[in-house]
Amino acid sequence: MIKLASFDVWGTILDLDLMLTSFINSLSELIGEDVSADVIRVRKRVKELRRKFEIKPGGDFELSQELLAEKLNTEIDLIKRAAAKATLKIDESIIMEGVDQVLKFIKENGLKLIIIGNVMFWPSSYTRLILERFELARYFDRQYYSDEVEAYKPMKEIFLRPLSEFRVSPGEAVHVGDSFSEDFQGALDAGLHAVLISRRGRPKIHHRKGLIIENIQELITLLKRGF
Amino acid sequence: MIKLASFDVWGTILDLDLMLTSFINSLSELIGEDVSADVIRVRKRVKELRRKFEIKPGGDFELSQELLAEKLNTEIDLIKRAAAKATLKIDESIIMEGVDQVLKFIKENGLKLIIIGNVMFWPSSYTRLILERFELARYFDRQYYSDEVEAYKPMKEIFLRPLSEFRVSPGEAVHVGDSFSEDFQGALDAGLHAVLISRRGRPKIHHRKGLIIENIQELITLLKRGF
Repeated sequence: MIKLASFDVWGTILDLDLMLTSFINSLSELIGEDVSADVIRVRKRVKELRRKFEIKPGGDFELSQELLAEKLNTEIDLIKRAAAKATLKIDESIIMEGVDQVLKFIKENGLKLIIIGNVMFWPSSYTRLILERFELARYFDRQYYSDEVEAYKPMKEIFLRPLSEFRVSPGEAVHVGDSFSEDFQGALDAGLHAVLISRRGRPKIHHRKGLIIENIQELITLLKRGF
Repeated sequence: MIKLASFDVWGTILDLDLMLTSFINSLSELIGEDVSADVIRVRKRVKELRRKFEIKPGGDFELSQELLAEKLNTEIDLIKRAAAKATLKIDESIIMEGVDQVLKFIKENGLKLIIIGNVMFWPSSYTRLILERFELARYFDRQYYSDEVEAYKPMKEIFLRPLSEFRVSPGEAVHVGDSFSEDFQGALDAGLHAVLISRRGRPKIHHRKGLIIENIQELITLLKRGF
């Protein structure tokens, strides 16, 4: 029986493309040139380093700002300003479709509800602020982010620590996210059930504890039938 | 000659009482009881620990959240939610009188302009967001906060590191703030000029490099006459 549902944030609950665009635009404006290619390149690099566990636990967020500042030959303070500007600019369209309904369903069914999120370019405090602003924070019992806990996805520790805090076994938990390696593979490797949201169609993957959906609302059906 | 002006944030540029009230109200609402006395008590304790250098460098912000959670027998996540809610609630009245005029004057006169701030209860990223939102961030060349650099006021290091980054000697810098021990004494001990904003009257203090003003606008006169 599933007792705890864990969600990734960016790309799963909140629209990553919108936020990333807002961040890129703010930074381009502050620096006076188009930084999009460099931001995307640094993003790929950080994701690659995480996949290979080559970043020290707790260090992925700061590293992302450092690598970007280096790439752009600019100051970290400007990157921080762009993060603040981007956070100020976004509006309610940042919430992905169906999210409110799914979180409400999970909460009403008495499951523990948490976030496990990796952090890049903007700090988790801004993600918390956005979730608070659009009234999603109230659904979550706790939020775990890689710039606050000493771990990042796909490290097992970031999945297992919350479970021990809530006294839930991996088999009683499901993690939902849109990244194959950080969310799906990471959660499966830690022994949790995993649901991959693959909005661009269903890749053919077979795993006893892993399911693929195209749309977050399908989670309601999955939870109703008990996985 | 003064080449760099450094400012404390809360109580100097932004209205600490307003933010603290907003934070206390948000937290009281989340917890369901009046937390003001406990917040004030923990605040005093953290300030006392800083004054005695009994907090590990870089740890004052996290310690403040931990001590408060412990005191209230609640979760740190609720304190983080209150910090987000407080940040969302404040409006332009958070900017203290005369600030814009003073910062503009300093910038127009070619001085380097920085912030050196201690952090408690809400992270420096929220302070950056507020400064960005009300268009004060653009005045500052860099911002230094105790949750990002491995030091807090009144440690000498937090005053000296920025100076070495800007290649300015302590005698060419002035730090302005409203806390006697963290700002005034701290800056003087590090060899900087110091200006204490004492809104409740001028205490009688005599120091070759320390001046007392009642109101931030008096800085303009001080800078004009070259200290």
